[in-house]
Amino acid sequence: MMGNTFGRLFRVTTCGESYGKGKGSGLAVIVDGIPPGLKITKQDIQKELDKRKPGVGKLNSPRKETDQCEIFAGIGQDSVTTGTPLGIIIYNVDTQKVHIDQYREYKDIFRPGHATYPFFLKYGEAQDWCGAGRASGRETVGRVAGGAVAKFILAREGIEILAYTKECMGIKTKDMSFNEIKKNYRKNEINCPDLEAAKKMEKKVLEIKDEGDTAGGVIEIIAHNVPPGLGEPVFDKANALIAHALASIGAIKGVEFGAGFKVANTKGSQNNDQPYLTKDGKVRFKTNNAGGFLGGITNGEDIIARIAVKPTPTISLEQTSINMKTMKEEKLSPITRRDPTLLGRIYVVAEAMMAIALLDALFLAKAYDAMAKLDKKWAKLKEK
Amino acid sequence: MMGNTFGRLFRVTTCGESYGKGKGSGLAVIVDGIPPGLKITKQDIQKELDKRKPGVGKLNSPRKETDQCEIFAGIGQDSVTTGTPLGIIIYNVDTQKVHIDQYREYKDIFRPGHATYPFFLKYGEAQDWCGAGRASGRETVGRVAGGAVAKFILAREGIEILAYTKECMGIKTKDMSFNEIKKNYRKNEINCPDLEAAKKMEKKVLEIKDEGDTAGGVIEIIAHNVPPGLGEPVFDKANALIAHALASIGAIKGVEFGAGFKVANTKGSQNNDQPYLTKDGKVRFKTNNAGGFLGGITNGEDIIARIAVKPTPTISLEQTSINMKTMKEEKLSPITRRDPTLLGRIYVVAEAMMAIALLDALFLAKAYDAMAKLDKKWAKLKEK
Amino acid sequence: MMGNTFGRLFRVTTCGESYGKGKGSGLAVIVDGIPPGLKITKQDIQKELDKRKPGVGKLNSPRKETDQCEIFAGIGQDSVTTGTPLGIIIYNVDTQKVHIDQYREYKDIFRPGHATYPFFLKYGEAQDWCGAGRASGRETVGRVAGGAVAKFILAREGIEILAYTKECMGIKTKDMSFNEIKKNYRKNEINCPDLEAAKKMEKKVLEIKDEGDTAGGVIEIIAHNVPPGLGEPVFDKANALIAHALASIGAIKGVEFGAGFKVANTKGSQNNDQPYLTKDGKVRFKTNNAGGFLGGITNGEDIIARIAVKPTPTISLEQTSINMKTMKEEKLSPITRRDPTLLGRIYVVAEAMMAIALLDALFLAKAYDAMAKLDKKWAKLKEK
Amino acid sequence: MMGNTFGRLFRVTTCGESYGKGKGSGLAVIVDGIPPGLKITKQDIQKELDKRKPGVGKLNSPRKETDQCEIFAGIGQDSVTTGTPLGIIIYNVDTQKVHIDQYREYKDIFRPGHATYPFFLKYGEAQDWCGAGRASGRETVGRVAGGAVAKFILAREGIEILAYTKECMGIKTKDMSFNEIKKNYRKNEINCPDLEAAKKMEKKVLEIKDEGDTAGGVIEIIAHNVPPGLGEPVFDKANALIAHALASIGAIKGVEFGAGFKVANTKGSQNNDQPYLTKDGKVRFKTNNAGGFLGGITNGEDIIARIAVKPTPTISLEQTSINMKTMKEEKLSPITRRDPTLLGRIYVVAEAMMAIALLDALFLAKAYDAMAKLDKKWAKLKEK
Repeated sequence: MMGNTFGRLFRVTTCGESYGKGKGSGLAVIVDGIPPGLKITKQDIQKELDKRKPGVGKLNSPRKETDQCEIFAGIGQDSVTTGTPLGIIIYNVDTQKVHIDQYREYKDIFRPGHATYPFFLKYGEAQDWCGAGRASGRETVGRVAGGAVAKFILAREGIEILAYTKECMGIKTKDMSFNEIKKNYRKNEINCPDLEAAKKMEKKVLEIKDEGDTAGGVIEIIAHNVPPGLGEPVFDKANALIAHALASIGAIKGVEFGAGFKVANTKGSQNNDQPYLTKDGKVRFKTNNAGGFLGGITNGEDIIARIAVKPTPTISLEQTSINMKTMKEEKLSPITRRDPTLLGRIYVVAEAMMAIALLDALFLAKAYDAMAKLDKKWAKLKEK
Repeated sequence: MMGNTFGRLFRVTTCGESYGKGKGSGLAVIVDGIPPGLKITKQDIQKELDKRKPGVGKLNSPRKETDQCEIFAGIGQDSVTTGTPLGIIIYNVDTQKVHIDQYREYKDIFRPGHATYPFFLKYGEAQDWCGAGRASGRETVGRVAGGAVAKFILAREGIEILAYTKECMGIKTKDMSFNEIKKNYRKNEINCPDLEAAKKMEKKVLEIKDEGDTAGGVIEIIAHNVPPGLGEPVFDKANALIAHALASIGAIKGVEFGAGFKVANTKGSQNNDQPYLTKDGKVRFKTNNAGGFLGGITNGEDIIARIAVKPTPTISLEQTSINMKTMKEEKLSPITRRDPTLLGRIYVVAEAMMAIALLDALFLAKAYDAMAKLDKKWAKLKEK
Repeated sequence: MMGNTFGRLFRVTTCGESYGKGKGSGLAVIVDGIPPGLKITKQDIQKELDKRKPGVGKLNSPRKETDQCEIFAGIGQDSVTTGTPLGIIIYNVDTQKVHIDQYREYKDIFRPGHATYPFFLKYGEAQDWCGAGRASGRETVGRVAGGAVAKFILAREGIEILAYTKECMGIKTKDMSFNEIKKNYRKNEINCPDLEAAKKMEKKVLEIKDEGDTAGGVIEIIAHNVPPGLGEPVFDKANALIAHALASIGAIKGVEFGAGFKVANTKGSQNNDQPYLTKDGKVRFKTNNAGGFLGGITNGEDIIARIAVKPTPTISLEQTSINMKTMKEEKLSPITRRDPTLLGRIYVVAEAMMAIALLDALFLAKAYDAMAKLDKKWAKLKEK
Repeated sequence: MMGNTFGRLFRVTTCGESYGKGKGSGLAVIVDGIPPGLKITKQDIQKELDKRKPGVGKLNSPRKETDQCEIFAGIGQDSVTTGTPLGIIIYNVDTQKVHIDQYREYKDIFRPGHATYPFFLKYGEAQDWCGAGRASGRETVGRVAGGAVAKFILAREGIEILAYTKECMGIKTKDMSFNEIKKNYRKNEINCPDLEAAKKMEKKVLEIKDEGDTAGGVIEIIAHNVPPGLGEPVFDKANALIAHALASIGAIKGVEFGAGFKVANTKGSQNNDQPYLTKDGKVRFKTNNAGGFLGGITNGEDIIARIAVKPTPTISLEQTSINMKTMKEEKLSPITRRDPTLLGRIYVVAEAMMAIALLDALFLAKAYDAMAKLDKKWAKLKEK
């Protein structure tokens, strides 16, 4: 693995896995590019970590992890950031021998839908066979902690990020405004702001859970109040950085922006967002098919991204697989500790990655702006 | 702009725009990470450039560009690569004053669906108002030239890349094997290997063209015979690099892999690809919902990616817009030089970006492999 | 700060400062690019950290730090690396209120030779005024821990790295072979393998210490048994990466290789190293003025680098300075806790940075080699 | 080669070699991170290229190259930069068959002091044996063109860069102020502003040339009027980036800043630069032993760097070498086309690399500043 750092100017580096060796194992993130003087506390990180914590509710894995974070670096004697990188650590708690032994028993068997096979090929017998190692969803603790920092800084710039379940097993969330979505954010386990749809989704997922199976879905991530001008063409367009960030989350099989795949059946005259002038002379668009970008640069509208979340690959049904030691096909028994759907937890990871990519793009844009020294006229327009 | 380089070990840097100033304007790409001893010639580059050349057929823009490339660096006296970066240049030809003057006339008017407005904000009045500058599809010439080099090297490793139109305005391509697709590759202007569907698509697009409008669609990109083990978790997973690469192409509103957004309505037991052993002891999968990745690492199956291509924003219908100078809303007249759909040309850009990202991932994986020095047993399995 | 990551494929990211806020403050390093299956233990890290530990001997600062490290990530249940990044943490111990209060008292006064003034400008009042924060030598704990990992991996490739005091206040170390230097490595506090010179140096430094002053010097770093072929022209030549790595250490005012600045007074015929063939047909050089590089690529000879180490800026003599609050010149009182010379501790940091840069260059070279697939003939020569 | 890009936000990518294959061979640079609206012309680039042009005067190689540049990308219809990357190309002219044939004759013989041997190992038989390929000084054409752009932008910020010969074969330049040096800049072939010393140096070099030999020296590079606050600790300190940039130039065996290697024999009380307040309340330092950096961040004083330049390895004296084909030792005949010293040409390359590294550091610092939003008080101090 050589890909544990994300971002150019705002940069997150993570480590740690599901079950490390020994009592002191944990997950950490180093966050570089921190402005000085921020009153960021561990509660700001903790509240995000708590959203993805397992062991809560019927739709989540019964694994117990308190996920208590500590900030061990980057805060000065005056209790504010000093400009140096933040170091945040979260120790593993639920690392009982009984679970490790269970993983040991199956360590030579490829688990369908899991990373076991390619990890075997890349890392050999030494690969982390316990709890899926760093291919486990537990890896995302570092992302969420880093994302919490990014959100804190973005909030200072007036930018809000919010993700919710848009679709699950055929049930769709109705169209809602940002404020409506925000009002009903995290009102239920599946995090669907359309409370009617939420009920149906939860019922459906529980039925599927009872079958021993799992459910997929779609999550929408909105970045609200984003300034125009973010994104560095041609390869580091804002949407490309965000696609990279979101696609790097395990279980994500697709990323789309604005109208997304619907453009396949749309004419130019329908798809082009028409600009208009607000009363105070600001340029806005009548629709947001573009999802907040034009030419890879933010256009002042909300960023709208959606991700396809595959059903949890761990299921309680028998599957066929291959035993690496014997090199024979073998039945894989049902596994019981699992999330019946990832939708109720993965949204906070998506928010985190959106926040990290967006803040990095903001840093890059500020650098460019400072060097560009635009003519006053355009600068004025920009401020609006 | 500070994002004109893509890749870490195999690295492509491009420059150049639609209409540069003066007679000698052109587009170029510097390709770094070239192995020595390759008999790569300008024909290898040219044949890819020819695929995206405008001015051919009814579905393409009437702009005339010969797009003749020259390799000016990286080839030694023995006519092979020396290991130094390749330099490839393509001079602009169709830069007549009449067209430049036309662009000048409309330079203060935001063009709906185009990058004009955010570019104005980011680059000010100095932005390239002529032919959409580097927000034009013409920018992709550098990508295609770089991608041609990547394809050449991938071919040496036995890897083939191919893209085709999967869907257009409601018409879908039937399921076909890689070999069937390859057989009918580029058999028609819309590059759809399902010849029946192709006819319907072309008819549909011409109808839409006659309305003065444009059409969107979906392109599928397949990478065939990809070795398992590519991708560097957790942020530089192979699919994340590819998503970044594909999403950086103008007009792309979505990227999905394997089952893609269909996972939203799929159960785990349906979505998990079950592994089996081939007669020669190789691990393969019965289905490819994963699209060639598990845990962000290639699993030996074909990589299947799809991109949503928006309808060309330039249309021959009147639109409302804003004049920057007067800061008033204004009607934008129809524009005549345009592609009625991007599907017949953009696929080669998608192939190029897939090739560049994949070769970069291959370099990274080879570095890791060389350092990993895996136990003989696993190494043996890997070779299969 | 946005520069806390070093390396492209073998990558070290550090955080932490002299005195963090609260009891749980510490320093950490995340080391990415770890091959799987390594039996690396915390003792391998600890033995390097112990070399730079303060509070030992007459030539070192009296600050007491045990610097006990813990590996909290990257080691699997089988007690070997899994290929995931290593996480190493070292908690601060000597963070008594009395010292913090002392720093608080002087926090508005620029300390000559220290980073205080530019840090004030860059980070404002929020900058870490305690113990010089991350401008303190304590920051190097992360480098040394990361370097220990790099050394472990390099040793597996047969490469050894060793640094020693070459010169101190006019006293020079005699010419010695690598084996002689190695034999006398760390035989005295000033780490000078020429035992006669060492005595003189230590006597001189203690005299200077008694004056309330501090001493500078030169350290030589040797990388032994380095394979030829490392380095990526033209900007990432091996010597350029190493210069970057070494120059990033605080207190370093110069870096030179082989003959170094002596080339200013040397003719080409004297400076060119003449090659010869060993009995077993290997190419070697009669001299090593090049210091192990030709054209920025290692040539099979030892890498010889030297760094100029400035005298510790903290002195026990009165100095003039400026008070930021009053914006008046002010006398700065003598400070007592300090190293009379950095030579006895900084060498291990230099070894660490050499190791990190060299291993990164090795990864890059292995990637290139794997892609280059050189003709058998040259490959054979290379193996020699 | 995979290291042909330098810089993070202001980024230079080069390609091209001494003698490429065919008539259209050349060298190019793509410069990314260009602010919009700059009236940069090819004359701005050309005047820098002219400084390093061979074939002028007694101290330079007789190779004839006109080195005429063309800007083929990045300039819009209004003749100013648009914010897109600049593309600059310089075609090779002096590529006569007679010279190529001469190189072909000796292509299997390692040339002492040259990169031939490690290049053979890394790139095999396919390596560019003609005119040293990209290990030739000719490669620096791309650096100088990129540096010219950096200088242009730095000048807009009031920053000047200037390099001159400080020492040559025992003859030293006297101490001179920046303005004195500037006044006598490029007044003689060896570019030494101390006109007396210059005469002696030139006489000495010509004597050495007559012996068939070559001469080394030291060049000092000054960056004048640099704002404080540039540099990103801990690994991307401004001096570390500059050391990387300068050490990447061929023939450079050492880099030092301020007092440099003299610190080895200096006490802390002598070496610490004491700050004082100017009449207008600005903080400055009484001396500049630090060479313009404290803690790796610029402190408002001039940046003073010096590089050790080895004597040209091409000499007119017989040398022993090894023939790769026969694998036998062999005499290498004298070569006549060469520079008797590199001092009269390489200084402009050093200026270019300083400019590129410094501008990149400036971009990074501006990004950080914009995010840091320092308290008004500190911000005010900074402006001074």
